[in-house]
Order: sequence, then structure tokens, then C-alpha cells
Amino acid sequence: MQRHSPSRIAHLQSLARLIRYHSLNATSRAHSGHLTSSLSAADLMTGLLFGGTFRFKVDEPDHPNNDRLIFSKGHASPLLYALWAAAGCIDEQELLSYRQFGSRLEGHPTPRFPYAEAATGSLGQGLGIGLGMALNASRLDHLPYRTYVLLGDSEMSEGSQWEAIQLAAYYQLANLVGIIDVNRLGQRGQTMLGHDIEAYARRVAAFGWKTLTIDGHDMPQILDAFRESAAERSQPVMMVARTVKGKGISFLEDADGWHGKALDDDQWKQALVEFSGVDRELRGTITAPEDLRPERATPQSAAVPHYEIGKSVATRTAYGAALTRIARQFPHLVSLDGEVSNSTMAEIFAAQVPARFFEMFIAEQNMVEVALGLSRRGKIPFVSTFAAFLTRAFDQIRMSQYSQANLKFVGSHAGVSIGEDGPSQMGLEDLAMFRSILTSTVLHPCDAVSTEKLVEAAAAHDGMVYLRTLRQSTPVIYDNEESFRIGGSKVLRQTSKDRLTLVAAGATVHEALKAHEQLQRDGIPVRVIDAYSIKPIDATTLREAADATGAIVTIEDHYPAGGLGETVLHALADRPVPVTILAVQKTPMSGTGEELRDFTGISAAAIVKTVGRLVTREHAGAIAGRDRRH
Amino acid sequence: MQRHSPSRIAHLQSLARLIRYHSLNATSRAHSGHLTSSLSAADLMTGLLFGGTFRFKVDEPDHPNNDRLIFSKGHASPLLYALWAAAGCIDEQELLSYRQFGSRLEGHPTPRFPYAEAATGSLGQGLGIGLGMALNASRLDHLPYRTYVLLGDSEMSEGSQWEAIQLAAYYQLANLVGIIDVNRLGQRGQTMLGHDIEAYARRVAAFGWKTLTIDGHDMPQILDAFRESAAERSQPVMMVARTVKGKGISFLEDADGWHGKALDDDQWKQALVEFSGVDRELRGTITAPEDLRPERATPQSAAVPHYEIGKSVATRTAYGAALTRIARQFPHLVSLDGEVSNSTMAEIFAAQVPARFFEMFIAEQNMVEVALGLSRRGKIPFVSTFAAFLTRAFDQIRMSQYSQANLKFVGSHAGVSIGEDGPSQMGLEDLAMFRSILTSTVLHPCDAVSTEKLVEAAAAHDGMVYLRTLRQSTPVIYDNEESFRIGGSKVLRQTSKDRLTLVAAGATVHEALKAHEQLQRDGIPVRVIDAYSIKPIDATTLREAADATGAIVTIEDHYPAGGLGETVLHALADRPVPVTILAVQKTPMSGTGEELRDFTGISAAAIVKTVGRLVTREHAGAIAGRDRRH
Repeated sequence: MQRHSPSRIAHLQSLARLIRYHSLNATSRAHSGHLTSSLSAADLMTGLLFGGTFRFKVDEPDHPNNDRLIFSKGHASPLLYALWAAAGCIDEQELLSYRQFGSRLEGHPTPRFPYAEAATGSLGQGLGIGLGMALNASRLDHLPYRTYVLLGDSEMSEGSQWEAIQLAAYYQLANLVGIIDVNRLGQRGQTMLGHDIEAYARRVAAFGWKTLTIDGHDMPQILDAFRESAAERSQPVMMVARTVKGKGISFLEDADGWHGKALDDDQWKQALVEFSGVDRELRGTITAPEDLRPERATPQSAAVPHYEIGKSVATRTAYGAALTRIARQFPHLVSLDGEVSNSTMAEIFAAQVPARFFEMFIAEQNMVEVALGLSRRGKIPFVSTFAAFLTRAFDQIRMSQYSQANLKFVGSHAGVSIGEDGPSQMGLEDLAMFRSILTSTVLHPCDAVSTEKLVEAAAAHDGMVYLRTLRQSTPVIYDNEESFRIGGSKVLRQTSKDRLTLVAAGATVHEALKAHEQLQRDGIPVRVIDAYSIKPIDATTLREAADATGAIVTIEDHYPAGGLGETVLHALADRPVPVTILAVQKTPMSGTGEELRDFTGISAAAIVKTVGRLVTREHAGAIAGRDRRH
Repeated sequence: MQRHSPSRIAHLQSLARLIRYHSLNATSRAHSGHLTSSLSAADLMTGLLFGGTFRFKVDEPDHPNNDRLIFSKGHASPLLYALWAAAGCIDEQELLSYRQFGSRLEGHPTPRFPYAEAATGSLGQGLGIGLGMALNASRLDHLPYRTYVLLGDSEMSEGSQWEAIQLAAYYQLANLVGIIDVNRLGQRGQTMLGHDIEAYARRVAAFGWKTLTIDGHDMPQILDAFRESAAERSQPVMMVARTVKGKGISFLEDADGWHGKALDDDQWKQALVEFSGVDRELRGTITAPEDLRPERATPQSAAVPHYEIGKSVATRTAYGAALTRIARQFPHLVSLDGEVSNSTMAEIFAAQVPARFFEMFIAEQNMVEVALGLSRRGKIPFVSTFAAFLTRAFDQIRMSQYSQANLKFVGSHAGVSIGEDGPSQMGLEDLAMFRSILTSTVLHPCDAVSTEKLVEAAAAHDGMVYLRTLRQSTPVIYDNEESFRIGGSKVLRQTSKDRLTLVAAGATVHEALKAHEQLQRDGIPVRVIDAYSIKPIDATTLREAADATGAIVTIEDHYPAGGLGETVLHALADRPVPVTILAVQKTPMSGTGEELRDFTGISAAAIVKTVGRLVTREHAGAIAGRDRRH
């Protein structure tokens, strides 16, 4: 235990008091916000930021060698803003804009606030984000910065935390420090473990972390713990701090029923009495880190793909090949996979570019959190697993949109076409899931060439992209020189007499082409469009086809809601034509891909039957209309 | 350590050999399936089912007092089917239908196979399902059955397992036994911990479970461990078994690269040599349990709700009230909440009917798994948290559809209307998520009365229901006697001269009514429909409105894809009219609900503006058309 000068301790305690004062005022002014959750961690965070351990260049929050601080307990945002006000980075006045429309001091932090490393607020995600940043420091940027994550005790019940705890130990990330603010009280009562900090420590230690237990309001203990954490060289460190919710305002301390409640005006006045004499001019200083920056590799152009038309290749294999091919064009591209790289074919990249591949094991939530952390540090993560298993991380995917993240998701084994493994392994809701994110791009190539081109487009695109790949092989139908842009489509078959238009993506493009052949023999010409860019959809081409042919049939290997069919409907909504949506209309089971496409109504035969029915009805309607006029 | 008779051990070993033989044949015949994953657990499962501990009435798989066996490692389905063949419950011949189209022996088990307790196959979910069944035995049915869950080692990296581990210890469920099959090899190489069974045991023990470590191929050890587990009275039990992947077929044992691979015909022949002399007539016996059945409470009719028209009530509050009101009408209804019951208002039920409320803490994945387990045992779980946080459990929600589950999900805090907490807490993708499940029902009532009625309808409905509630209060607009059916809607305003139809749900119904007032003053009559049943949507009423008014504007507090607007488009797709979709078109931030609805384009003002534009365009078009004809 180090000896600390009394004046130093007193300075930090006064800072903590000021920080509590700011938290009180921000939330009371807003009549909204989590005051007691902020108060419990004030001493811990004051000790961290201003106690001499943390390294941060305050006028360059994005400096690559800054230590990183993540509030996994994002609802303690008043504390976050108060800390940086105490550092002199934001105005006291601005604190009073907390939670107001337009303010960058939002209810839960997002990177609109420059000192928020990532958007948090959905609990249990911060440790994984921090793991990503620590992994970046250790394995990619090769910089000495540390990553600190403030954790709530309630959120330790989230499994995602334990995914991160396992993986950080496995990767021996000694530059990752978690701090659990054990204040005993959750949203509606005591947590499972209450104030039993030894229980928390035992659990974390069992996973291979170094653990320290402290009194979270004892500044000397706090400083010692941070110093010890920073000296750790072989394991990640978890500080488990016993704290009091509401600490610093007497009538709130350890009292249940105050979670998420701001004080009313009378209570505010009452609380302010306890801050009389607070020194509002006080500021804390933070030492800047060494001005080290990562080496920036120069992008080199990639080779072009070489596929033979007609050859059968699985688009998942083309994915692995593409990622490898463009690796040097995108030096910041990294690949993360959830223990299925020999299925997603990320293993091709892993074998060729091992320094940029990270096995995430069967823990999809953490995988996405890690990807977010890497993305915030300038990397371009391609996150792969089965399309069906990306649903495991929907909350993390959802949250990533609020962090200006640049994540690429790759879901393999799309649709009933995967066959015998059955529905637990089938991606049947994934198009809907990714379309639902406001700012997403959704791509579903049908052959190896378009896959390769769209992987490049995805890497070059700024923002979230979802790329859906197939388990089964499909014939190469595009020339290696063909270009594919996000928002585009390909008209594969057309005549001036097309009776309607088939719009498909992925496996169903090939079903549509087979149907086209059959229909041609039946004397029914139809247009065929490969809508490989599901979002944004090529509305112009759809409009042309709608105007020219008068009706559309969409076909997707996906359940009926939220996918390709509804995208097409939405694109034509202002001047619609009749649209028939073929999708998986029955719960699938085991079987071959062909049997299942037939069973669920998305096969070439189903398309032919549907077109026949529509054309007959239309013809009958035309005859009836003609008869009526006579 | 008990002494076991040599003949007994020999019998069990022979059974295990037969079971391995069945697994080999089933997968080899199918040319598909996870053989090595099945072989590693064969001795464990043989010892469990036929060793004298397990209690099961084989001709009544759904007997309420049967012990329950769940294969969390669902890909070991060959083993599951082989076990029950050895019990004499299915034909050896049927085993050869494994993975074939139409067979009930699917690639991953579903309850189409009567001895599968639930559909598994997406890893990491079985322990929570088992927890639900154990909770049912202990707290609801009050029966002595035990629940056993076979776990893979790779899937222990899934955080959901640790959610279950925490909660089972907290609830002191001594009737829950997990068995980890530590065979060292994952899908593409060694797991994080390899064969270190002590490491697994230490981790689980730190959470308060009793742990036993054994050699998973030593039958006496296996029998002793199960006997010891069954005697446990105060803690859940985890058996950690060191096993060999591929055990029983020499060229597969502990060999990497065989995960998920079936043998080809030559390899099959080679393997069969190792089973020469296998006794195919051998059968194992299982003792039936005590014929205890739970008390069946008699449903009693519920009181009717009493709300005053015009009064402001939050639909989330009406939810809590409704659940409480109908509790005695549905004696098997239970409530699960993720530590936000004072936000979702499930706390109203918790206070009145505490025996049927279960706090799940902040662990949404496990909450849904537990709900599935309860549902499989005949309960009707209402699972509540913020709509946004239901995305945390999308994989569990997705998987539940394959278990013939009867789950009711209740997501509160819908949309930007929640205000200052900001987007991390806002449900903006939840309608799309729930619509995407093939067999789901999606309801979004706009006032307290309709909420009460739809909670009843949800409870009475057989199948998955999602009910979306609001944080903010809304005026009661319906009479207490009004009836609301799944698939229905309410036409709130209509005339014979309506220029178009507004279709809304939840908060936007009230925006639409405000807009209607303004438009009426502007001399533009519009129809207003409350589409409280988003799925199935009331296509008939929409069709009437489309035919009568010629155009539709939909308004939802939700992102644009996959929600109300696209539902309406889909319902009218065969004979469409122009549809304008108003939805949240910008990334929200903190602010008041009103400010945010304005900012994102779903307020009454936005509706009025849109209608004005459409009506002008239409009018201009009509004039142009008229001018052209002259």
C-alpha cells in the first residue's frame, strides 16, 4: 500500500465532490437521469482519471495511444459528463443541457460526445467493447494504452460479460481493467449478490483474471488498486469495489427506490445544502500518453478474381477467398469468427493472414462487442458466423448503429437450402433483422463473382453492411469483369414482351433462371432481376420493370416478413403494381435443399406455377374486360 | 464409491456399444450428422438413462413427473435417437430415416420427436430451458422430478449458460443437473480449455453449484456421479466429464477434423468391423416415476376492466393490471421479468400473485430459455422487459418457434416516444423482429382498454404473441365493453368522402386522431384505422378502406423496415393502392417524446403535412388528367 500525500487525497476528494455536484445539477435540471448510479462510482472514476494512472490527451480524445474509458453502465452518463467537465473539457453550463433535445450530453452516452468511446446503455456490452480495444492495442496497433471499463453490479448477470471475461483471459489481455461498482441495488431491489464483493471476485478469478477487492469510497485504496492494475503484465484485472448507491447525498445513500429517479426541485434544494462550499473552479489534470501512433500500412491494390462461368462455387467460399484477396487493399480489415470458420470459410483468410484473424469461439454477443471496439479504433471488422446465429447478437448489432460503427456482418447458411441440419441452423429471419436497422446495407449475392465484388464494396463502404452467403454451391453466372455496386441490381433476362418480372436474390436467382427456361418453353416470357442489393434496393430498375411488365413476383429463401418481397413493395409503394411474394411459408424440417425449397414454396416449380396462375388470371381478366366492353 | 455388480456394468457397456452402433449407422446412412459429438457422450447418457437414476414412463413421454433430459448440444441428435431406440421406444429401422425429409428424427431435435423436451441446435440454450423445467418442478408443479441437461464444452463459452448458472444457484434449484461432455475438440480445433476439467469445475463452483469431475467413459464413476447428483438437496449440480470425441471408433478418437462429418461408405464399413458381435436385441429399462400429477387449479372468470374514457393511462400500466386481473382465469399463467418490473409494470402482478412471478434479473437470453422450459411444462409465460432489450434474446425467441412453444412477449418503452433516455432504450426494430418469426402474432394496443382485452386474447391464444406497450400515458378511447380480437382493427373515423386512410398503432393512433382533427378543419376528411393487430393484420378492413379511399398513409413509432407500413403493403400487394409510410427516418437522440416524434417525422404535424402533399398531388393529377381529356 503506497503512502499518499494528504493534500493529494484531499484534492481528489474535492474533485469527487465537485463531480457529484455536477451530477446532481445535471439530472435535477433535466428532471431525468440516473443520479444514484452516478454517485456510487464517483470516487472510483475520480481516482482513475485524476489519480495519476490514466493517460489521456484531453484536446485529442481520439489520440490512438490514449487510455480508453468505457462506461458499460451507460446510464451513469451524468458521471461521465461530470468527469470531463472536471477535466475542463466541457463547460459547466453545457451540463445543464443534459438530456435536452439537440444536446450532445444524451441520456446514455454516444460518440456525439467526443469522450464517449462507444454508445452504451444496453447493459452488459461494455466489457466486450473494451476487450476489442485492448485486443487492438495488444495485437494490431501494438501500443501500450490500457482500456478501463466501468461495470455495474446488476449487469454482471448478463451472459455477455462472462463471454468477455472468458475470452480476455484466453487472450491474456493484461491491458484490460474492469471496475465493478458493487452498490448492491439494482433497478427494483437488491441484486443477486448484494454487497458480497468476495463472491464477485471469486467468480471472476475462477476465469483467470487477477482480482482486487476494495472499498470504492476509500481514495487511497482506489489509487493503489489502479496502480497495481496498471502494473499487471499477464492477466486482465478486475477491481471489485464495494460502494454505496447514492453516496454523497445523505438521504439517497443505500436507499432503495431511487434508481433512475432524478430529484424534484425541493429535494434538489435539500441536496445542495450538502454541497455548500463546493469549489466550482477546481479542475483535475490528466497526463498525456506517449505520442505513439500505430504504423499505417499502405494499401496495395488487390488482384482480380478468376472464376469460370458455369463452374459451381459456394458463395461462402467466395467470401473467404475475397477477404483474403482484398486483405492488402484494406490493411485495417480484420476477421472475427464464432468457431465456425470452416463453415463460413473465414478460415481461408485465417490461414493466409493469421495476424488479422481472431477466433471468438462460440460467443456471438461478445464477438460483435469486440468488433465494435475494434471499429472504434479504426479497424474494419468482418464478423462471420451462420446467419441464424447472428440473431444471438441482435442487441449488440442494434447498439452498434449508435456508435458510428463500421461493422461488416457475414451470415452464412442462408435459408432452407442448407438442408439436413434443419431449422435451428437456417437463416430465415436475418434479412428482416438487418433491414430493420435504420442505417444498414444488406447484400445477398447469388454467385462467386458477385460475392467477391460485393465483399470489396462492403469493405470500401462506410457503415454497417450485412452480406448473406450460401452453404450450397451455385453456378458462376457473371463475368469476372462485371461490376456490382451497393444499390444496384442485374437484369438477367428481358424482352419487350415480358408478362411480369421475377425478382430474386441468392439461391432463388438460380430458381428464377430455371423457371424462366421452363416458362419460355411454355410461351410466357418473364423478366428476371438479381436484386443482390436488398438494401438499398435498386428502385429505378424495379420501377422500369414494373412499368414495362405490370406485375412482379419476388422469391426469397427467407420467411415472408421483412425481407426481399417487402423491400420491393416498399420501393414501389407510391405507384404500386401487383406483387406476389414467394417466401418460406411453412416451418421447415430436415431434408435436402431441393426438397425443402419445393416443400416451402420457393423452388423453380413453385415459381412456374405462380406465374402460370397470375398470367391466366390476368388473361381471364383481360377477356372479361374485353367482353364487358362489347 | 458404490460397488457395482460386474454384470450390471457389462450390461450398460453393451448398451452403450449398441447406442454407438446406432449413431454410426444413422449418420452414415444419412451421409450427414454429428457422429463424433454423439460418441463422446454415449457412456454418460447410457449411464444416466439406464443406470437406475433416471425416472421416466416410456409410454407417456409427457408424464408430468418424468425426469427431463435436454440435449443442449442438440447436434448430438444421433445419440438422442439411439438412446430411445435402446429403450425400445423407436424402431431400429426408423433410425435409418435420420435427417430424411419427413422423418421425425431431424438433424437437430424438435418436439416432433416425442422424447425431445424442446428444440435445440443453437448452442448454449439448453441449460436455461432445463432451469425453467426445474423451476416448474420446484415452485409451480411441486413435483420431485429432476432435470438433466447434456452440455457440450464448446458451448460453455456462450454467455447464456452463465446466466443460467447464476440464476439456478440463486434459486437453489437442487433438482437441476448439468453434464458437461468435455471432449476437448470444438468445430475447428481445440476449445479454450481443452481437457482441463478442473478449470470448468472451478468456474461453475464459484457460482455456487456442486461440481463433480469424472472420467466420462468409466461407467462405475458415471453411475456414482448420477447417484450423488440425485441425492443433492441444496444446490444445482454440475458433472464435468472428461471424454474423448469419437470414442468407440478407433480412427475417430480424439482426432481433429471430424466435427459434423459423417463417414463415407468405406469408412462406414471400416467402423462396423469394430462393432462385430453387437447385440442388436439388447434393450435398456427405465423405471417409471411415482405417478404424481400437479394439482390443476380451476379457472375462474376474471373481472372486467374499468377505465374512464379520456383518462390518461400508460398501456404498460394497463398491462400490469390486466395480467393481475386475468390471473385466476389462467391459473397456469406466470410472469417473468428482467429486473425492470417497475418499468414494464409486471410489478403489479408480482405484488398480487407473487407465487407466479419470477425475477430473472438482467439476463434476457436466459429469461426466454426459462420461459420455454416453463411453456413445455404447460405454463403460459408472459416475458417482459423493454422492447429494445428483447433483441438481446432474438436467437432464443427464434428457436422457441420450433418447440411448439406458447410464449407471450411483452416489450415496453416502444419508440422514440420514450424520450430522454435516448435510443439505447428505444424499441425501434422490435415489430420487425417479431413479425419475422413465421408463426408469431404481433399486437400493439393504443389505450388501456384495448391493452387489457389483448392481454386476455394473448393468454387465450395458442402460440407466440408479442405485445408492445408504451412508456407514456395515452387517453382511453375505447369503452370497457369493446371487444378486440387478434386479426382485427378499429375504424375510428370515417365518412363517405374520405380522401385517404391513416393506419396507425400505439402512440401514432393518437397522433393520427390529432391530425384528423386538423385535417377536418382544413376540409380534408380522412379515415383513421387503429391497426392494433399488426400480425395478422385486418386485411379485409384495409381492403375496404383502400377501395373506398384510394390511398393509405401508415404511421409507426418504429424504424421503416419490417413494421406496420410493410405489413399493410404486404396485405394489399395483389391489388395495391399507393401507400406512404411514415416511420422513424432519422437516428433519434435524447429529447421529449413530442420533440422526437416531430424530429423523426411521425407526429400529427408530419401526418398533416404528408396528407396535404398527397391530396394536392392527387388533385393536381386529377386536374391535369381532366385537362388532357379536353
